[in-house]
Amino acid sequence: MGGFFGVASKHDCVFDLFFGVDYHSHLGTRRGGMAVYGEKGFNRSIHNIENAPFRTKFENDVLTMKGNMGIGCISDFEPQPLIVKSHHGTYAITTVGKINNINEIEELLFKNGHSHFLEMSGGDINPTEMVASIINQKENFIDGIRYAQELVKGSLTFLILNEKGIYVARDLYGRTPAFIGQNDDGFCASFESFAYLNLGYRDYKELGPGEVCVMTPEGVKTLIAPGDKMRICTFLWVYYGYPSSAYEGLSVEKMRYNCGKYIAKRDNVKPDIVAGVPDSGTAHAIGYSNESGIPFSRPFIKYTPTWPRSFMPTIQSKRNLIAKMKLIPVHDLIEGKKLLLIDDSIVRGTQMRETTEFLYQSGAKEVHIRSACPPLIYGCKYLNFSRSNSEMELITRRVINRLEDHVDDEVLKQYTDPDSEKYKKMVEEIRKELKFTSLAFNRIDDLKKACEIDECKLCTYCWDGKE
Amino acid sequence: MGGFFGVASKHDCVFDLFFGVDYHSHLGTRRGGMAVYGEKGFNRSIHNIENAPFRTKFENDVLTMKGNMGIGCISDFEPQPLIVKSHHGTYAITTVGKINNINEIEELLFKNGHSHFLEMSGGDINPTEMVASIINQKENFIDGIRYAQELVKGSLTFLILNEKGIYVARDLYGRTPAFIGQNDDGFCASFESFAYLNLGYRDYKELGPGEVCVMTPEGVKTLIAPGDKMRICTFLWVYYGYPSSAYEGLSVEKMRYNCGKYIAKRDNVKPDIVAGVPDSGTAHAIGYSNESGIPFSRPFIKYTPTWPRSFMPTIQSKRNLIAKMKLIPVHDLIEGKKLLLIDDSIVRGTQMRETTEFLYQSGAKEVHIRSACPPLIYGCKYLNFSRSNSEMELITRRVINRLEDHVDDEVLKQYTDPDSEKYKKMVEEIRKELKFTSLAFNRIDDLKKACEIDECKLCTYCWDGKE
Amino acid sequence: MGGFFGVASKHDCVFDLFFGVDYHSHLGTRRGGMAVYGEKGFNRSIHNIENAPFRTKFENDVLTMKGNMGIGCISDFEPQPLIVKSHHGTYAITTVGKINNINEIEELLFKNGHSHFLEMSGGDINPTEMVASIINQKENFIDGIRYAQELVKGSLTFLILNEKGIYVARDLYGRTPAFIGQNDDGFCASFESFAYLNLGYRDYKELGPGEVCVMTPEGVKTLIAPGDKMRICTFLWVYYGYPSSAYEGLSVEKMRYNCGKYIAKRDNVKPDIVAGVPDSGTAHAIGYSNESGIPFSRPFIKYTPTWPRSFMPTIQSKRNLIAKMKLIPVHDLIEGKKLLLIDDSIVRGTQMRETTEFLYQSGAKEVHIRSACPPLIYGCKYLNFSRSNSEMELITRRVINRLEDHVDDEVLKQYTDPDSEKYKKMVEEIRKELKFTSLAFNRIDDLKKACEIDECKLCTYCWDGKE
Amino acid sequence: MGGFFGVASKHDCVFDLFFGVDYHSHLGTRRGGMAVYGEKGFNRSIHNIENAPFRTKFENDVLTMKGNMGIGCISDFEPQPLIVKSHHGTYAITTVGKINNINEIEELLFKNGHSHFLEMSGGDINPTEMVASIINQKENFIDGIRYAQELVKGSLTFLILNEKGIYVARDLYGRTPAFIGQNDDGFCASFESFAYLNLGYRDYKELGPGEVCVMTPEGVKTLIAPGDKMRICTFLWVYYGYPSSAYEGLSVEKMRYNCGKYIAKRDNVKPDIVAGVPDSGTAHAIGYSNESGIPFSRPFIKYTPTWPRSFMPTIQSKRNLIAKMKLIPVHDLIEGKKLLLIDDSIVRGTQMRETTEFLYQSGAKEVHIRSACPPLIYGCKYLNFSRSNSEMELITRRVINRLEDHVDDEVLKQYTDPDSEKYKKMVEEIRKELKFTSLAFNRIDDLKKACEIDECKLCTYCWDGKE
Repeated sequence: MGGFFGVASKHDCVFDLFFGVDYHSHLGTRRGGMAVYGEKGFNRSIHNIENAPFRTKFENDVLTMKGNMGIGCISDFEPQPLIVKSHHGTYAITTVGKINNINEIEELLFKNGHSHFLEMSGGDINPTEMVASIINQKENFIDGIRYAQELVKGSLTFLILNEKGIYVARDLYGRTPAFIGQNDDGFCASFESFAYLNLGYRDYKELGPGEVCVMTPEGVKTLIAPGDKMRICTFLWVYYGYPSSAYEGLSVEKMRYNCGKYIAKRDNVKPDIVAGVPDSGTAHAIGYSNESGIPFSRPFIKYTPTWPRSFMPTIQSKRNLIAKMKLIPVHDLIEGKKLLLIDDSIVRGTQMRETTEFLYQSGAKEVHIRSACPPLIYGCKYLNFSRSNSEMELITRRVINRLEDHVDDEVLKQYTDPDSEKYKKMVEEIRKELKFTSLAFNRIDDLKKACEIDECKLCTYCWDGKE
Repeated sequence: MGGFFGVASKHDCVFDLFFGVDYHSHLGTRRGGMAVYGEKGFNRSIHNIENAPFRTKFENDVLTMKGNMGIGCISDFEPQPLIVKSHHGTYAITTVGKINNINEIEELLFKNGHSHFLEMSGGDINPTEMVASIINQKENFIDGIRYAQELVKGSLTFLILNEKGIYVARDLYGRTPAFIGQNDDGFCASFESFAYLNLGYRDYKELGPGEVCVMTPEGVKTLIAPGDKMRICTFLWVYYGYPSSAYEGLSVEKMRYNCGKYIAKRDNVKPDIVAGVPDSGTAHAIGYSNESGIPFSRPFIKYTPTWPRSFMPTIQSKRNLIAKMKLIPVHDLIEGKKLLLIDDSIVRGTQMRETTEFLYQSGAKEVHIRSACPPLIYGCKYLNFSRSNSEMELITRRVINRLEDHVDDEVLKQYTDPDSEKYKKMVEEIRKELKFTSLAFNRIDDLKKACEIDECKLCTYCWDGKE
Repeated sequence: MGGFFGVASKHDCVFDLFFGVDYHSHLGTRRGGMAVYGEKGFNRSIHNIENAPFRTKFENDVLTMKGNMGIGCISDFEPQPLIVKSHHGTYAITTVGKINNINEIEELLFKNGHSHFLEMSGGDINPTEMVASIINQKENFIDGIRYAQELVKGSLTFLILNEKGIYVARDLYGRTPAFIGQNDDGFCASFESFAYLNLGYRDYKELGPGEVCVMTPEGVKTLIAPGDKMRICTFLWVYYGYPSSAYEGLSVEKMRYNCGKYIAKRDNVKPDIVAGVPDSGTAHAIGYSNESGIPFSRPFIKYTPTWPRSFMPTIQSKRNLIAKMKLIPVHDLIEGKKLLLIDDSIVRGTQMRETTEFLYQSGAKEVHIRSACPPLIYGCKYLNFSRSNSEMELITRRVINRLEDHVDDEVLKQYTDPDSEKYKKMVEEIRKELKFTSLAFNRIDDLKKACEIDECKLCTYCWDGKE
Repeated sequence: MGGFFGVASKHDCVFDLFFGVDYHSHLGTRRGGMAVYGEKGFNRSIHNIENAPFRTKFENDVLTMKGNMGIGCISDFEPQPLIVKSHHGTYAITTVGKINNINEIEELLFKNGHSHFLEMSGGDINPTEMVASIINQKENFIDGIRYAQELVKGSLTFLILNEKGIYVARDLYGRTPAFIGQNDDGFCASFESFAYLNLGYRDYKELGPGEVCVMTPEGVKTLIAPGDKMRICTFLWVYYGYPSSAYEGLSVEKMRYNCGKYIAKRDNVKPDIVAGVPDSGTAHAIGYSNESGIPFSRPFIKYTPTWPRSFMPTIQSKRNLIAKMKLIPVHDLIEGKKLLLIDDSIVRGTQMRETTEFLYQSGAKEVHIRSACPPLIYGCKYLNFSRSNSEMELITRRVINRLEDHVDDEVLKQYTDPDSEKYKKMVEEIRKELKFTSLAFNRIDDLKKACEIDECKLCTYCWDGKE
């Protein structure tokens, strides 16, 4: 996905910028970048963070960069931030989003004038350059920013830094978040709200959908007021967000406790222990345990002291083996036990199947599986989630295809209703295929309740197909 | 502390060796090393792992090293393994331990002959070279190994690799562990028992105190039988071990649940939630919650997606600030709440004081503190723990010094008795100084019960001064 | 300055490309880059070569890049090659040149449409991106290439790689060179003619001024015929070119022998030895020695086994000291000797002054200085020479300013005539200021003769002000 | 071979040490090292310099190391300097030499006591550790140093740094050099005399054979007086030394001019030009040209702007091709020309054969070859020359084996006499085999004269077999 951080300070911003960006490390594994603006103009640094963490890679830059305003990012794809010169002058830009209509926009821009893009190795256009190019289509800078928000199909939240300040622009429908924090020296902009807490900033505001602000060391001004339509991604709470993140006033951790609680309320099995699949399943399981009184336990531990991401050395022939090596069993807590396991979601089912098998082999008597969210039936159209690339890989769709002669929108819709027979049949088929002792999914209505905000503000597309 | 891994296989051992060593990354932050023995003799690689993880640093070595036997280590101090040539022939050696009498041994060795040591940058003798030098004092190799076990005051567990096999030697009193695992291709030796589980090995044996085995791809032979006196470090379960580790048949995770359970049994406060200080406090808190029925919760989260160790960039002026930035609050779970917090131990008290302050500032109503182990009154003499360097830094000793005109062994002893008035006075003084709502320590008898093994096998020196 | 190399081969081109680019290492010290086109599209790599040589930095890329066509560069300024996507499709581009009118072109392009440039750290537009942007202004690709040649004031020679082949475009007036070589597998394009000799290519053709060719593994086609006006930089032979380079059929080494020969013919001093200031003065001195019969000798040696370029570690306080440390005296060959020293040119005079002082201190009796080219009176307008940045730093201009009340074009012109009194006065003033025993410059007519080509094809602007 | 530099200064020594060691870069390609002694004791750094130069690798160390005494080295083999702790206290040591009897010494040391060596990766004992171990055999430090000089068969010159000063010990027979320089702040020790000239030191003394001095910032004291027997390696002048080096008062450059002069005096061919094979042949050729009046010229140029050493990237399949790519022809100076080419020596003849072939292919009419030294008939026993590993690879020995039924010492001796028929036959056979137009070697008597010192001080073993 990616994340960003920006600082506009009366003093040098580099220290805060460095740690603010670093606190977005959970959102991407490919590139990190920082751009600052100071007396000597722009200074920018980008590093590959695939085999060493952001901190290691930017340690030296921190010592040489200077400036009182800066923006930075963790990027899962393109090198960022870019420094762009156009008729708007020079600015730095970093984006988080997904441009579904990149080819149409490219065509449109080539039609409008003799533009060009500097391709990345591999042949893709840098999506952030694309956004800059859209902004440059308009005579007026703010018009350009709004044009980019409107033109991009998918999602787009971004920061722009020029000599006047830092422009913070949240996605038109608020699909991804943007926050502003404040301390005595100025302001910071952040993708994750928790990123500035330990840097001495307090909450200043959460931008509304489509809102555009400009931030200077002296203050924050709204340039484009927030719209009234919001579709924030519910998956941010369920899976993607860091536990200490909060969106729309609700922390990820608490929302997950809620999910676990609602699942427990409707459950009737009596396992010996409740456990979560690390990392995101843990909090869901805590919620379940606290509601049900069934002891919470950790029958396997994720080994994090080494490289914490999915990085693995290039021993191609052993990749599968390595992938299984993250979770380490605690035999005392498995042998002869009835386990109830909660994961955030079930996508293809492969991983949960393997984990279950591994528990049976370690002596588990029963393995009950609970998913913190409803069955995933539609692939996400809005965000760059690594989780749900192809709809046909979803276990729900594979099962539905098996059960139905013909699958159309109408048929799919029936499978999204937890009270329908089709739904129950699908769940039972999944359970049998994956060899769980029992299986249940959180209900869409319970999930919405767990979010504690007006449900019309939530995007629930991947579960119910509603745009 | 440090850890090691060794493989003697019928096939190439490098893949297993790499991951086996990597699974000891939680035990050290300075150096990693691997030595293999194959058709071309010994091949050895050592890297500094202070600013990039073991995996990143050894990725290339994995591709070039070859051999069917190998040993490796994570070292908190000296470069290891060493390749030593002596009248015993050539061997590779890696050690985990603490040599308290290094100066006396040095003097002894210089007296016995014209020996030399290659000092490390900084002027220290490499303790592993020292162990090798002791082994070389005896005509017979096994005699040399036993001589090293006996001569070293402190602790010493080690692996030696030569053309005949891998020698595994556990500390004379079993202060630190050593395990052997088995698969179809051969055997592995490991400091942590969990390190080989996901590599396809099954438990073969845990060495007894002072036991020395030699391991080849074909089998394992005990060269020196285990002794009958054991003093395994109880802190391995309380704090140092990884949750999935098990020593003497008891998993760290389960022992911690036990600690929490026993604390809860004697407790009488009614907080809203129970939480652990990550990482080691977490399991203690789970045990407490499960026993008491008070909900387990995570009011702060440790930020691990970035560099997971204590590494921090070299911005000296901001070190203190940075040190505080690891734990991120979840405000939903703190504001207006009565919290009970469990940590593995209280050493100087500074960190717990700051954490408590931070919780009060985030709106906590009450902060009750529980320590999973009794008050630390004596500094460890046996292991290289970073936790308890100087006895006078211990908060217990500072408080006792304040309370007593004269402190001697007899006086100290009284403070180790949880039923004594002095003990209660000390605990109350600590509570007041650190501004906790309430404070309690696990009792030494409960701690021993939590270990589930014969208590005479446990070293409890730091709590009761018994050697 | 910079240089480039390109290969269009029936087989993989990477090995040839790597070494072909490496042979341009003498032309730049900042960046190296390679882009190849193969079955998987474009693959590009750029590295900073300021503190490690091209070979070291690209060693890994050579092993992973694949493709049968590729271009690469040594760049003294911007990161290159760029991969550009426009209505022309996708292409890679690398340039050598100097864009004097970069601001005007920028303004023109912004006026013509909503274009943008990705600024480099430091705030400059990447000149190669600028050239690409000019090319993209025209509907037709070849029209675009010619438009770039015409629009740029200064000089511009470049390579473009797309799926059809490699376009080689020499500067409109041939200020910088471009060659094509041939072997059994295809063709190569090169800035320096010698770069392909040891790679098994034979000379195919030298492009004429403004000529544009397209090169495929199968053949070379001229798309734009060469123009009839040439102004190749004479300094390429005198100083910038590598000794084994040849331009317009004349090798640098031979031209320098010629220069030395013509100076010797007019000289009348009788020194003990003749020496050149390394590196470029050496060949001039050999020519002088062979003509005059005065022994050639090396009274100081440049220390090259270490880092061969001007790179020095960042000990700011000692930079001046370090700069003097390149030339090492051979006392046997200096003490009590009359030396005649030839350098390629005298710019500010500082270095020659220091070298002379150093020789006097080492015991030299006389130090006669000869310059292989006439006095530099005008700064170069056409190429990115590091040598002649500001006209007012030229020792000639400082002396003329001292001698004249008013300096205008007419006055300057008189100082370019080696037969004028003003010229003689200037030379004597320089000699006195720099404390040489005697001083003489090569004459402009002799210099032209030394080039052995039609003198109207030579740019001699820096010496005579003729455009 | 390797080289070293040491500084004992009243002020910080690191800057001088860094550049002094760097000036020995021509003597080794594998490791560089520096050890300093200051207020905080010893600090040592060693880096691999195989793929980046000493300067690049030690740039950061220069900024962090501190101390007023230090030693450093360029090493062609083992990591150095070592820091050794023994009954002599702690000292740093670096050596240049060749230990022929390493196995016997190892055995002797193991017999004398329970010593050990830390093997290097690959299984070799670090020869510098071996030297330290010998020194540690004696009760008294100076006795130990002399014992090492006497025990080692081959050659041994070294520096030792302890808290009292820097000990400089030249080889017992002066086979390799050692110099001391002086400036206002103290003294330096150097393998090459020129290394301190540009650092502001003046010559203080050249150590005699076997001499041992101790050097402090305040003065230099001779601890062991020089012996009266000297056997300095003549090859130092002919090939190994840098042109600006001087040994026993004679510069390498001048000695090579002498060689060229004596060859020319006896020569009778009339080539168009004289050229040297870079780098070491150049000066020999200058001497020949100056004596004969035949123009000196550079028909091929070594490409040095890239990595100047023999380093080549790891494209195994193309190594041979790459090796040939160093010398670049200047066709103007070859085509139709009669060339006389001088190289320092002819070892296996392969390279000269290829160079000659390459010249014929480039159009040379005649290629006359001259060797600056006599035919190499015996392999060196004293120094780690890469040039003459195996006697049987020498072209002389291959030819002699072809010409003689039986080869013994007596027979070989005859081939060392330039006036014998056997010698003439051998030279003619070599000429024919290598396809030179003509071939001549410098005579041993002329070579000795070229050295300008008492010939009994010269080691000429490789040419005449005299020990």
